[in-house]
Amino acid sequence: MTATAEQIKFLENSIKSIADYPKPGILFRDVTSLLEAPKAFALSIELLVSRYRDQGITKVVGTEARGFLFGAPVALGLGVGFVPVRKPGKLPRKTLSESYELEYGSDALELHQDAIHAGDKVLVIDDLLATGGTIEATVKLIRRAGGEVKHAAFVINLFDLSGESRLQGLGVESYSLVNFPGH
Amino acid sequence: MTATAEQIKFLENSIKSIADYPKPGILFRDVTSLLEAPKAFALSIELLVSRYRDQGITKVVGTEARGFLFGAPVALGLGVGFVPVRKPGKLPRKTLSESYELEYGSDALELHQDAIHAGDKVLVIDDLLATGGTIEATVKLIRRAGGEVKHAAFVINLFDLSGESRLQGLGVESYSLVNFPGH
Repeated sequence: MTATAEQIKFLENSIKSIADYPKPGILFRDVTSLLEAPKAFALSIELLVSRYRDQGITKVVGTEARGFLFGAPVALGLGVGFVPVRKPGKLPRKTLSESYELEYGSDALELHQDAIHAGDKVLVIDDLLATGGTIEATVKLIRRAGGEVKHAAFVINLFDLSGESRLQGLGVESYSLVNFPGH
Repeated sequence: MTATAEQIKFLENSIKSIADYPKPGILFRDVTSLLEAPKAFALSIELLVSRYRDQGITKVVGTEARGFLFGAPVALGLGVGFVPVRKPGKLPRKTLSESYELEYGSDALELHQDAIHAGDKVLVIDDLLATGGTIEATVKLIRRAGGEVKHAAFVINLFDLSGESRLQGLGVESYSLVNFPGH
């Protein structure tokens, strides 16, 4: 099933835009309004699952916290395991850690070392692609654990923030259901 | 579909126990190992969805972050909207806030005020029931927003930590797929 223009419009309309959040001048795209709309939420998952159904994906990785909301249902739809990438100190088994830059300072993400195996073909899912910093850290974690990552998918892409070309530079093809300007 | 003893055993076996995490003397039940096992993850969602399918549920609420992993798929399975309860400062629209006690100090949870409507029959989903502090705060938030909460469901119940009786005191019936001792 390839998304029709009507379906994409329907998803776009289900995402509220919040002015001046989290700070003045930012128009925040609020994916929680899509989650509240059962038909839009179900359609977003169906479209992602059908796109990756025949790609030999063996694991889905989603990043804390909003990546869990879409990654877990996509993993269930594909019939593969879901592996969370989390903030430091949240995963109980042995982890790999990767830091990434924020606007001010840096943060880190962790992955259970034994959750990805050599030969795993991993699909990365998140709600939103902006500059791609957390996704780059996630891709590096998966590759350090031995997994292959060629695809990342998002509900929303802020297309003028260059996340897609950053991922392309890592050899990761990205796909997004909805595209909005980030400025 | 009611869970068979064999199904429950299968779910139990998919949950790894980690000694001395997050501190010495604690045996941590690691639900991420269930997520990695696609049949166990799918079964856990099927059992929860089938239990609540005919209960007139209109919204599912899940608490950040692990509650998202089970709450979102259960909402999709029931064909209703999913509403996240999050840590302070993460939700962009107008929120209600409720604090709760931790072992040392306190924390707070927030809910979008307009995400729950009068007459909504809300099912609360989380991965694990321990003392029930975060679930009590979640129930209070939903009721303040005008929703009705009579049911909460969990993958794991730490049965000797009194979460079930605490929820019963709030008029909320709890159900858990798997029961482990918490001490």
